[in-house]
This record gives sequence, C-alpha cells and structure tokens, in this order.
Amino acid sequence: MTALKNDLLLRAAKGEEVERTPVWLMRQAGRILPQYRKVREQVGGFKELVTNPELICEVTLQPVDELGVDAAIIFSDILVIPEAMGLPYEMVESKGPRFPEVNRSEKDLERIHVADPSALQYVTQGIQLTRDALHNRVPLIGFAGAPWTIFSYMVEGGGSKTFSQAKRLLYQRPDMAHALLDKITESTIQYLKAQIKAGVDLVQVFDSWAGILSMEQYSEFGLEYIARICDEIYEVPITVFSKGAFFAMPEMGHLNCQVIGLDWTMHVKDSRQQVGWKKTLQGNLDPCVLYGDTATIQQETSKMLEYFGPYRHIANLGHGVYPDTPLDGVKAFVDAVQSYEHSDRLHDDYTG
Amino acid sequence: MTALKNDLLLRAAKGEEVERTPVWLMRQAGRILPQYRKVREQVGGFKELVTNPELICEVTLQPVDELGVDAAIIFSDILVIPEAMGLPYEMVESKGPRFPEVNRSEKDLERIHVADPSALQYVTQGIQLTRDALHNRVPLIGFAGAPWTIFSYMVEGGGSKTFSQAKRLLYQRPDMAHALLDKITESTIQYLKAQIKAGVDLVQVFDSWAGILSMEQYSEFGLEYIARICDEIYEVPITVFSKGAFFAMPEMGHLNCQVIGLDWTMHVKDSRQQVGWKKTLQGNLDPCVLYGDTATIQQETSKMLEYFGPYRHIANLGHGVYPDTPLDGVKAFVDAVQSYEHSDRLHDDYTG
Repeated sequence: MTALKNDLLLRAAKGEEVERTPVWLMRQAGRILPQYRKVREQVGGFKELVTNPELICEVTLQPVDELGVDAAIIFSDILVIPEAMGLPYEMVESKGPRFPEVNRSEKDLERIHVADPSALQYVTQGIQLTRDALHNRVPLIGFAGAPWTIFSYMVEGGGSKTFSQAKRLLYQRPDMAHALLDKITESTIQYLKAQIKAGVDLVQVFDSWAGILSMEQYSEFGLEYIARICDEIYEVPITVFSKGAFFAMPEMGHLNCQVIGLDWTMHVKDSRQQVGWKKTLQGNLDPCVLYGDTATIQQETSKMLEYFGPYRHIANLGHGVYPDTPLDGVKAFVDAVQSYEHSDRLHDDYTG
Repeated sequence: MTALKNDLLLRAAKGEEVERTPVWLMRQAGRILPQYRKVREQVGGFKELVTNPELICEVTLQPVDELGVDAAIIFSDILVIPEAMGLPYEMVESKGPRFPEVNRSEKDLERIHVADPSALQYVTQGIQLTRDALHNRVPLIGFAGAPWTIFSYMVEGGGSKTFSQAKRLLYQRPDMAHALLDKITESTIQYLKAQIKAGVDLVQVFDSWAGILSMEQYSEFGLEYIARICDEIYEVPITVFSKGAFFAMPEMGHLNCQVIGLDWTMHVKDSRQQVGWKKTLQGNLDPCVLYGDTATIQQETSKMLEYFGPYRHIANLGHGVYPDTPLDGVKAFVDAVQSYEHSDRLHDDYTG
C-alpha cells in the first residue's frame, strides 16, 4: 500500500491533527456534473451505468478532477444489496427506485438469501479500477445502506413519505422484521468487507430513513444492526450517517465507529456534547445553501466550520447534494472549506 | 353560548384538571371511516367535498359518532388559503396536491393577495352547520396551515421530499420569502378569526414541513410568523404542531399558545422540560402502532400516557392517522386512552 498524497480525510476520521478540514459531498458523483450527465445519457439507463466497472471508475473520478474534493466515493447505489439478496429493483426516471416484488410475508422472506459478494463483483471491480486510476491522490470511500433503510425499501417497494408498510411489520411481526434485518446485516458485512479488500480506505453506512422511527424502535430495529456492522468492520474507519435520528445521538456515541454524520437540522454543539470527543463528526451544511450566491455560501460555510471547530470534523452537506444544484455553488462550497482558516487551531472544548 | 357536555379538551388545553385525558386523532374525518369513503365516492372529487358546507358537516360528525372521540375537527384542507390568495390547487387522486401555477418570482408575488375570508365561506358555513348539528356534545376544532408550510406548497407547487425550490428562495431571495410569508400570515389570521366567529372552540396551526429547515431558518421563516398568529388569536386556545421541529422546542415554549403538538420522534420528558408546565402537550403515538393488534395498541398507548402524566396532555397520534389504518386499530386506541387510569393523578413533575 502506497501512501496517500492527501490523507486529510483519514486523519480527521481517526482524530489526528489536520492542517485544514477535509471536504467532500455526498452524491458528488452524479447529476451536478455535466460530464456525469453526458455519460449517463450515452449509456441509457441508470442500472447499465451502476453495473459497469469502467463507467463506475470514470464517474467516481469526475468530482475529484472537477471539484478538487478531498475524497472519492465509489459510484453505486444502496439497492444493489437487496438485488443481490434476491429482490431486484428498477430505477424509474425522475421518480426513484421501485421493487416489482416486495417482502412482506413469511413466504417472501424464504426467497431472500444472504447476498454472495461475488454477485456484486461489478462494484468491487469498479473499486479496483478506481483505486488504480486515482494514483493515491485522495482516499476512496466505500458504502452501503444501513439495514433499516434497506429493509424499508424491500418491504415498502419504493420510496414513501411515511414508509407505513415497512413500519407496520415492526408492530405486526417483529420476529419477521428481525429475521429480514438479520439477513440484510450479514449481507452488508460481507459486502463491506469485499469493498475493503478491493481497496476502499473508509466505509460509510447510510441510514436514510432513520428519522421515521421512534427512539425505542430505532434502537431495536436500527442501531442494533448498525452496531453489529461496526463491530465487524475493523480494517478501515467507518462512518455512520443516520439521517433525522437526532434522538439517537447519545446512543450513537457508543457505536464502534470513528465518524458520525449529522444532517442540517442537528445542532453541532449539542451533538458534540452527546457523542463526546472520541468520534469525528461529518456534515452538516443545508444542501440548499448551495443555491445561494458565493457570499452566502462563504458565510454559511464559515459559520458551520466555526461551530465544528478544527478537530474531528469532516466538512460535508447534511444530505446528498441535490441534483439541480449549480456547479458554481458546489465549487464555492469546496473552496470555502479549503481556504478557511480557523482563528484558533486549539478549540476550547477539545479535550481528546 | 351553551355549555359543552364534554369539555375535557378545552380544560386540558387551558391547564385545568381533568377526570381523564381527552383524545382525538388528526385526520380522523377521512379515509379510515367507511362512511367517509362512501360520501367521497358519491361526490366524486375531493374539492367538491371540501367546498360543500353540508358535506363538510356530515363528514366532520362521522368520527364523533363512530369513534366517540373527545373533539370534532372541521373537515377541510390547509390549501384553501393559497387558493383564496390567488393560487388554486388541484388534488390528484392518490398523489396529493398540485399547483398548476407556482410562486417563485416577483411577478408571481404581485398576483398574490391577502385572502378575503368571504372567499372561504364554504368553510365557515360548514363550521356553523357542524356546530348546530353537534348539539354541544364535544368541542369543535378549526385549523389552518402554518405560513411556512403554505409557503412551501406555493413555491414548490406540490409535495416534495426536499422542498428544495421553496428552500432555495430563502437563500436566494429572503426578502421575497418574507413578503410572501407576510401575506400568508395576514390571510391566516383573518381566516382563523372567521372560523372562531363561526363557532370553533379551539384552533390548530399545522406546520407539516417545519422539520426540513435548520433551527436558524425555522426561527426566521417559521416561528416568527407563527408567533404573530398566536399573538393575534386570543378568543380561543391555540395549538401549534410543528412536525419534525424537535430543535425548536425551547423557542416554542415562548409562543403565546396553549398547546404544542409533538410527533412520535420527540421525547415526551425532554419536550416537557424544554417548554415547561405552562403549555399543554398533544400527541404523540406513532400512527403505525395502530396497525398492531389490540394488545400492542393498549400497551403502547399506556406507555405514552404514563410518559405524559395526567396533566396538560391531549392524547393524539404524532401525525395524521394513515388512510389505510384498520378501523379496529383506531377504536382500540381511543378506548385505550378513555379507559386508562393514571396510577397517581398527582404527577411528580407537575409544578404548574
């Protein structure tokens, strides 16, 4: 393993001192970039793109070249896991994912198996190609959906405002819910290990629908399984982003992970107090700030960096960048982070 | 004004002692009731129903008769206000509301006027009819959307996962955003006053999209306007339900309102601590509990009632009841609240 030229992200994740705060954007490889839209148009469907290692590599590198971010994140989708478990998905243009078949009964559950990582070779091959092509410029991030979020899609059959079908199962058949979450968790651990073997430097678990559960339910059906993943992944640092789960912050402080993602509704200082100084925090600018002019973006970004302080912070948005965000706004954000100087590198509250 | 036979809701709202906790459900007049579905089918479109005073009266009374809830809430929609302001909406079957025209530019804003309450006579007439037909059995609740939520629909043009068009305006043209919020607020105050004059006993302001703003933005573009409404409505108690705005609880404690609604992700004890004992809390069972069996519903409802204690609580769900909720589940919830006896009527924490 050759040394990375820019390892700010990894050092920040591990709680080491950094010269400046590293920055990347969730969903940075995607529609915000004209070069991505061109590839996407040429290839036709989303799934043709997401299963093609060469194209995965190409679009993963685009934001590193265009934006100068401090990390690459492999271009993929969290729904490759349910597909590898026996539940294929479709990506409906401008509507989002849809599962022609769903998992709601015991019979449905029988068809579902723990995913064999070899079914996801298109991802691991994409990682290998990207890693070679990156020439150690920046770290490469791998990822997976958290079990609760994957479960939600598999039971609901697609996006939803309430995910009431998925939540219904938690009250009606908690035993079945746990059985499915168990299979998803096992699949996810093996999948993340395959990504690490293929060369990613850090992995992130996205729990996009954490915020629709009550604290008690998220503890039982969400964090329980995330904790299992965190315990099994020791080869590289791991980030957990539970969107909307403000109520779970104290419990998340006990996870065996290095980084916790915050969305833009979460208080930086409160979250820090709740998780302590043994974790790095990632986030959390409102993605809509990037619709503003450069002055607004600089001002809001500076405010955010000031809240977090210079230690144990990875700058990011509090959500994936919205597809219609102007490229200039994205660039202004990256520049604002990379040119920011903390007035005092020794943060008052830092006791780590 | 004749005395109400059941005034539990009003006494709870005002912080007076009650023999038992009152209960009603947000969206109780609606698809969960077979008698509603029948009316809805006969009349054809949603808007034909929502603009017909006789039918408004009929469906408003249905849950009082069928479920025995402790309050009626007038059947209507929060989007009648933008329509009365010059921006008509459509209700697309099983998809939700859509605005053929939106409000995003200064020119758009010019077309928008403060609503004349006389344009909403179908609502006030519905209230008068309902009030007569109720024969003082239970209080009648009136309502309106909060300015931020109405603004979101008017700018976005319909439902959205991110409301990024609405939020975009806050960063790009805060002046225009405030101008529109101002007109909505003025319209809402006059509309609520017309409802009160027509006979409602309490009003509720629904801020369905409060949770997509950061704390600072919600303070500026949300609570600022809610506070203005609260200050102007003194004739009857007022409830504010800012879904998802966990971060705003301490600030909401200073609103000039009697009741604050909680969604199911909000901690009961934390919220109580943050708003103090001068407010009544309303909520907050996860609507998906009602998919469970009777034993589950009883257990979860008892737990909730225990958390809130016997004073200053109005039992409800943490969200509008989902349309596919089994009627038996709804009944089990209402029964569970109405038959519950607090082990100790004097709550430890009660200092009010």
